[in-house]
Amino acid sequence: MEDIVKKVEINCDMGEGFGKWKMGPDEELMKMIDVANIACGFHAGDPSLMLKTVKLAKAHGVKAGAHPGLQDLFGFGRRQMVIDPADMYAMILYQVGALKAFLDAEGVPLNHIKPHGELFHYMQRDLTICRAVLEACALFKVPVYGAKGADEEKAICEELGLPFIEEAYVDVAYDKNAKLIPIGQFKMVTPEEINTKVLSIGRTDASVDVEGNKLPLNFGDKPFSICLHSDMPTALENMKAARKAVDVLNAEKFPNIK
Amino acid sequence: MEDIVKKVEINCDMGEGFGKWKMGPDEELMKMIDVANIACGFHAGDPSLMLKTVKLAKAHGVKAGAHPGLQDLFGFGRRQMVIDPADMYAMILYQVGALKAFLDAEGVPLNHIKPHGELFHYMQRDLTICRAVLEACALFKVPVYGAKGADEEKAICEELGLPFIEEAYVDVAYDKNAKLIPIGQFKMVTPEEINTKVLSIGRTDASVDVEGNKLPLNFGDKPFSICLHSDMPTALENMKAARKAVDVLNAEKFPNIK
Amino acid sequence: MEDIVKKVEINCDMGEGFGKWKMGPDEELMKMIDVANIACGFHAGDPSLMLKTVKLAKAHGVKAGAHPGLQDLFGFGRRQMVIDPADMYAMILYQVGALKAFLDAEGVPLNHIKPHGELFHYMQRDLTICRAVLEACALFKVPVYGAKGADEEKAICEELGLPFIEEAYVDVAYDKNAKLIPIGQFKMVTPEEINTKVLSIGRTDASVDVEGNKLPLNFGDKPFSICLHSDMPTALENMKAARKAVDVLNAEKFPNIK
Amino acid sequence: MEDIVKKVEINCDMGEGFGKWKMGPDEELMKMIDVANIACGFHAGDPSLMLKTVKLAKAHGVKAGAHPGLQDLFGFGRRQMVIDPADMYAMILYQVGALKAFLDAEGVPLNHIKPHGELFHYMQRDLTICRAVLEACALFKVPVYGAKGADEEKAICEELGLPFIEEAYVDVAYDKNAKLIPIGQFKMVTPEEINTKVLSIGRTDASVDVEGNKLPLNFGDKPFSICLHSDMPTALENMKAARKAVDVLNAEKFPNIK
Repeated sequence: MEDIVKKVEINCDMGEGFGKWKMGPDEELMKMIDVANIACGFHAGDPSLMLKTVKLAKAHGVKAGAHPGLQDLFGFGRRQMVIDPADMYAMILYQVGALKAFLDAEGVPLNHIKPHGELFHYMQRDLTICRAVLEACALFKVPVYGAKGADEEKAICEELGLPFIEEAYVDVAYDKNAKLIPIGQFKMVTPEEINTKVLSIGRTDASVDVEGNKLPLNFGDKPFSICLHSDMPTALENMKAARKAVDVLNAEKFPNIK
Repeated sequence: MEDIVKKVEINCDMGEGFGKWKMGPDEELMKMIDVANIACGFHAGDPSLMLKTVKLAKAHGVKAGAHPGLQDLFGFGRRQMVIDPADMYAMILYQVGALKAFLDAEGVPLNHIKPHGELFHYMQRDLTICRAVLEACALFKVPVYGAKGADEEKAICEELGLPFIEEAYVDVAYDKNAKLIPIGQFKMVTPEEINTKVLSIGRTDASVDVEGNKLPLNFGDKPFSICLHSDMPTALENMKAARKAVDVLNAEKFPNIK
Repeated sequence: MEDIVKKVEINCDMGEGFGKWKMGPDEELMKMIDVANIACGFHAGDPSLMLKTVKLAKAHGVKAGAHPGLQDLFGFGRRQMVIDPADMYAMILYQVGALKAFLDAEGVPLNHIKPHGELFHYMQRDLTICRAVLEACALFKVPVYGAKGADEEKAICEELGLPFIEEAYVDVAYDKNAKLIPIGQFKMVTPEEINTKVLSIGRTDASVDVEGNKLPLNFGDKPFSICLHSDMPTALENMKAARKAVDVLNAEKFPNIK
Repeated sequence: MEDIVKKVEINCDMGEGFGKWKMGPDEELMKMIDVANIACGFHAGDPSLMLKTVKLAKAHGVKAGAHPGLQDLFGFGRRQMVIDPADMYAMILYQVGALKAFLDAEGVPLNHIKPHGELFHYMQRDLTICRAVLEACALFKVPVYGAKGADEEKAICEELGLPFIEEAYVDVAYDKNAKLIPIGQFKMVTPEEINTKVLSIGRTDASVDVEGNKLPLNFGDKPFSICLHSDMPTALENMKAARKAVDVLNAEKFPNIK
């Protein structure tokens, strides 16, 4: 597996409705993103929505990855649960396997796997869980996406031969140690701030933490992936602001990559 | 895809517990069967149990197939529901895709797909649903199992290039038109009756219907698959009786097939 | 139990989100309605949302009733399922009992019970189911709401000593026999049409069917309940239009009832 | 509310199946117990099973209480989850309210509330959760059951005016601080040991901890409640052994209480 990020890109969680309930404005967002993280039915998503989202990604030339989560529809996969590592391994196989069937049906490759919400946080707190998740991911032989700063997860990925794609988050907040602060514990970020953050990351290799202090991200000269959420109240405006900044950066830094 | 049934075989639904709840005596039954139909989490089964069941099948050299059902844990997939055909197509992809991940993880091929309970009956009543299910199956390019008598389903399978493996049921009852009678609407079949029925099918190409009348099954000289349920009160005794009869038949009819 | 509708009123389904997913603009709608039908967790709703909705109704002086449905979150209780009547009886007790705990906690009386979506349609098609539901309702000794035209249900209510409150629907369509047409099988009704329909019902005792023909409703001089849905795209505009018309009617017909 | 335990009694979790899945031998156990803790559908149980279990308790003159749990069918309510206290309060109201509907339908009073499995352990670890649960219980004005040693829970019960009935567990293990050890982390207790433990508690006011050391329970002269589980492999034998010992104790200590 080679590195799959060739220039600055935007990834976004997609397909996070359930049945008759919608979450974000997926149809509009899909036009502006590069990579879709598709919910797999445990924290959100259902079979019909997964298929619809795969087709939508395909129609817009957006890469499609699996976005598995904890089995917690009520809590949207954002509540802490203690899971047996063997159960966790099986839950990841189940979810990614299910998504893969839709991708295969549509002739779209599985681009990556990105753990959702509390599953990601759990992996950072508990290395046994982290390993269980990544061993399941290893069976699909695709890169794993995760927030910049997940150094232990990154090390296990390397051990398992999986590229670990580090993301910069621009619509949520980091603490001073570059750890993501859970949704709901910080003031909403505005589209203007998002635009500024993206440009700052691309040009100075640094963002700002929740207190406004400079936060080095250390991507160096390498292209990186920016993550935005589809379930923010201002998701569409956030995305437009980020897209604009990303396009500016790519013109500056990677003019020859299409 | 060639015909996969080379001699008389026994298939059985496996992995139909959920969480802490068990259904049949899978560990014991797995030693006596040839083909396992593994529940995929919708009518029964959960990720951990699916993995455990795949490993159990592998350990005993039992072929493993997907046993998708209606999304109805409470009703064990035996209640009638009206499903949109597009939803149905997606539900089959989801379930079989999930099982395939476990099979891939264990290096076991997907042998077949067998719709569970009311899903099978629904397919017989509604050809749009039947086609939706089979079009999902076609993506996995494996044979479909179903009760003898499902002639319209068989025709769609042929059209889609899928072998349709016709099963004889020996622990439930047929009506005089060779249609399966839903569980709970007939008197339990005894192990002795099961032994007799299996031998009768093999030697006379006929079983008996619920009223005791001769019921031709028309397998001709071809080997066939017998289905037994793991959730009957006498499942183990039923299986021993069937296994004995099948071994006798194979010695008589297919002595050179191992 | 005396008749609880003293003047023309509006009832509306409320609390039909689930976890992080919202359905209608409940906070805004609750200001304009007289009676809330609160989802009980089977087709929509969850414990926290039920409590929140009870508090919201209480804060606005809106009467609160139970809105039980089929156990079908994915299908929002709008898919047909075949349910055992004994199971159905238990499902109604469970849902209404759960809501009653929230009402008791807030000191709000249970005003009525209104079956949701396909549960209502099922009751019209199957009198055994109808009776099972109503026998469960009878234990709570409150009126039952249902669409005008449910004459067999009305007769069973009378037999069980339950008032049956007949509603006029103005944001969905009737066929020529005054039976409700399922959501999705007719053109959306506009706010203007809703205003006109409400005034027409109040002044001429008739609405129009899906083909535009006059449809007598036979409320006579009695006050009646109008139902609007909170999950329509134009739910707020619909409600404003209906509220306006209802206030006009009440000033004309029931000026002394506050 | 007066103290409801007049002599030594046995309480047992009942109705912990789900749909087609059974857990313990409820029909047999119900003949030997005094108090049933009935699962409410979150960790186990479903509406039909709840009604059946209420009827079974009624038929055998067994007192019936609510046994609410965490919303975790897969984990049987034994997995740790972090729940918002406001959500927890609502979940208890929902479950107990649902059970109360079945009790009301059968004319059986709600005897008590007993939190299940991890919910009980969570209440011991987190006093905010403990208070949220007990404030919900307080609305039903019935005693709360819990293991001996839950001193902080007991204090909150007293503050809220709720009797707290302290139980002795005899089929699971205590650590040396009289805290219950989670299921699966100790060797199964035999029926003989159970008989011995019950007699020891009644006669010496002490049991033994997991290491075999004497564990004072400090019931004094007061009658107490013994809890046994219905989901142990030897549940029936355990119960017979306990029943025998309890009957001996009651003849010795409370001969005039029937």
